[in-house]
Amino acid sequence: MRMYDLIRKKRDGETLTKEEIEFIIRGYTDESIPDYQMAALAMAIYFRGMDPRETADLTLAMAASGDMVNLSAVEGVKVDKHSTGGVGDTTTLVLAPLVAAAGVPVAKMSGRGLGHTGGTIDKLESIPGFSVELTEEQFVNHVNMIKIALIGQTGDIAPADKKLYALRDVTATVDTIPLIASSIMSKKLAAGADAIVLDVKTGEGAFMKTQEGSFSLAKAMVDIGNQLGRKTVAVISDMNQPLGYAVGNALEVKEAIETLKGAGPADLEELCLELGSQMLILAGKTPTADEAKNLLKELIHAGAGLETFKRFVEAQGGDPTVIDNPDLLPKAQMQVSFLAEEDGFVSYIDAEKVGTSAMMLGAGRERKDSVIDLAVGIVLNKKVGDPVKKGEALAVLHVNNQSRLEEVKALLREAFEISPTPVPKPLLVCGIVTGEKIDRF
Amino acid sequence: MRMYDLIRKKRDGETLTKEEIEFIIRGYTDESIPDYQMAALAMAIYFRGMDPRETADLTLAMAASGDMVNLSAVEGVKVDKHSTGGVGDTTTLVLAPLVAAAGVPVAKMSGRGLGHTGGTIDKLESIPGFSVELTEEQFVNHVNMIKIALIGQTGDIAPADKKLYALRDVTATVDTIPLIASSIMSKKLAAGADAIVLDVKTGEGAFMKTQEGSFSLAKAMVDIGNQLGRKTVAVISDMNQPLGYAVGNALEVKEAIETLKGAGPADLEELCLELGSQMLILAGKTPTADEAKNLLKELIHAGAGLETFKRFVEAQGGDPTVIDNPDLLPKAQMQVSFLAEEDGFVSYIDAEKVGTSAMMLGAGRERKDSVIDLAVGIVLNKKVGDPVKKGEALAVLHVNNQSRLEEVKALLREAFEISPTPVPKPLLVCGIVTGEKIDRF
Repeated sequence: MRMYDLIRKKRDGETLTKEEIEFIIRGYTDESIPDYQMAALAMAIYFRGMDPRETADLTLAMAASGDMVNLSAVEGVKVDKHSTGGVGDTTTLVLAPLVAAAGVPVAKMSGRGLGHTGGTIDKLESIPGFSVELTEEQFVNHVNMIKIALIGQTGDIAPADKKLYALRDVTATVDTIPLIASSIMSKKLAAGADAIVLDVKTGEGAFMKTQEGSFSLAKAMVDIGNQLGRKTVAVISDMNQPLGYAVGNALEVKEAIETLKGAGPADLEELCLELGSQMLILAGKTPTADEAKNLLKELIHAGAGLETFKRFVEAQGGDPTVIDNPDLLPKAQMQVSFLAEEDGFVSYIDAEKVGTSAMMLGAGRERKDSVIDLAVGIVLNKKVGDPVKKGEALAVLHVNNQSRLEEVKALLREAFEISPTPVPKPLLVCGIVTGEKIDRF
Repeated sequence: MRMYDLIRKKRDGETLTKEEIEFIIRGYTDESIPDYQMAALAMAIYFRGMDPRETADLTLAMAASGDMVNLSAVEGVKVDKHSTGGVGDTTTLVLAPLVAAAGVPVAKMSGRGLGHTGGTIDKLESIPGFSVELTEEQFVNHVNMIKIALIGQTGDIAPADKKLYALRDVTATVDTIPLIASSIMSKKLAAGADAIVLDVKTGEGAFMKTQEGSFSLAKAMVDIGNQLGRKTVAVISDMNQPLGYAVGNALEVKEAIETLKGAGPADLEELCLELGSQMLILAGKTPTADEAKNLLKELIHAGAGLETFKRFVEAQGGDPTVIDNPDLLPKAQMQVSFLAEEDGFVSYIDAEKVGTSAMMLGAGRERKDSVIDLAVGIVLNKKVGDPVKKGEALAVLHVNNQSRLEEVKALLREAFEISPTPVPKPLLVCGIVTGEKIDRF
């Protein structure tokens, strides 16, 4: 087999066999296939696509290129959740303790990464003492005992994907659905999930700007999961404005605690119930989404999600009193109101710009070695559809370093659009894709 | 400017500016742009193409990436000829002395290269003593005095093209017209041609298998030449069977001598008159193709082409008596007839397979370091349309080493097709493309 022939085959619109895809990924991982051949193939895939079988084979080959986490010591069906990434996405912090409280094991491996705010690990580290340094034995014991544990990424997870992603990033071959879908799913597979719930964001603040693209990506990932024996469901949710109110690390932990108390932002709660109900169904806990949502609401009402969160934090060395008193979380020195300059109704909030504003305040990493300020960020006061008066705060900025404050305010001014006439609240959950069907709401 | 953005621009079907193309070629030559980005761009060009302006800019940028030969010391209009490569293509050996005899300066730089037979230099080196080791001064003096000289490729001609071609060769991005056209034309430009006649082959034995592809390639090259101020004309000629009878180095020199005597194969003479007349027109020697052809026929008849060939060979150290007595050329030890197995009419001769057969006998280089046997090769006795009787020789193999003889015979058996019913002689010259129009015959 020669890589040259496989590039040509894909270039000419033919389908690659499982053996050919394995040859490519094995060769790329062991460096017998050079970057320039892989780059040509990636561009050919950009133009020719891959069918569901090819995409599944690529996913499996990339998952198998490194360590495959074995979660067989964890009891029950391990359902992983993955978000394609948005702004102010606090769902994991709410969902993980909530579904754990429902008895679904959450054995989560997480990263830090680049972005508007830190990753889940960064956010949780704003709780004094919290650490993800667990041995594998501790990790498994925690999940079996309190149904939830979180560790940083260990071992060599899907190195072929890591290498390919870095290459795609510099060769303009990122935005092609088979490669996006296989990249995400290969990591989920290698991380040992039995079933996967995907939160596919759509809109200006998301990687996928159009509903069409988001549904296609969702379908591609669901197909991969189901072909590889992992029940997979995707929820498509709106990211034309940030989710919830808080954008920042400690600020999002506080918002998650409020949501687990039943007092969080309506959109964040709605999405958590939607994603959580799909997780419960895949775990075999409840037969229908309605029953699952009712169970999750009861758990919130009874404080069981919050209690699980507290036990989880304590088990990983964090100060559990923070859960009862979120004011113990890191706090910025200054709160600066960002005011409306006219009367009207909020018609649009550019999530990307709000996220970038938070990053400029120090909430996220611009470069791999950037140091995050866990206390800073932005809390929205208004969301799309809300009425607003001139001089009223649209958002509050939590600031430690004022050096870029004017720049941030200017960017936020671009982010908010105010309409003189009433604006309807946008639909949050746009659809659900399962192996059987695609529902658009 | 970032290469990433330029890859994406081309990927999305946009047009690259002159400055962007120069940035790419400069960066690729100085290695600030890595192979993997260039490979992705080449594949994007494969799918999106380049318009005539982009193609011309790419050509000029590649030509300017290394040494530009200055032929201003040579008097007259320097018309270069280039063939896209076929089997048994002896035209240069005939044309170069013939147009020189007509007063058109032929200052030719040539290569050796891989292929079914050697390059023009290898062929001429079958004349005892012939050498291409001339100083630049000798080269110019020879052209000014006898109107013809040949040197090996000197200096660093179009290094960007060399590097890009090697990359395309391993990334399945060779066969895309803008990249083929700019590759050929960049070398012609750097070699100092004032005007260019292109011999674009078409058919199974050519790089371009279809007439459509060949005319497109011809048009692309003619457009480049004319955009860059080099009058360019392309002749499209059939390569569904080998040109002439001889395939091999000394064998082709002998055939060229016969053709210069007016006793060569009809198709070879026809193509030489066609290409030669275009060269004379571009050089301003004659106004019309008919006048040019008549002049060339007269030169053959008067022996002027042969005389120029003799002076050329002598000037470069070769034994001129070979021209009068071609039996002094290297001769193979054995001549083996390849016989027809049935009565009928030759309906097809696969040029590629005949070429490969010659290479297997030792006439060409399979690898860069292969040693060519100048004496060996194949001489066809029959061409398409010729009647043949069972037991009659279709070809004669000139052999020194019998180790692969059976393999060669088996391949030749596949190359020849015999029809029970008469077959018309194929059209040799299929069309002419100039800056003004495309003539299809």
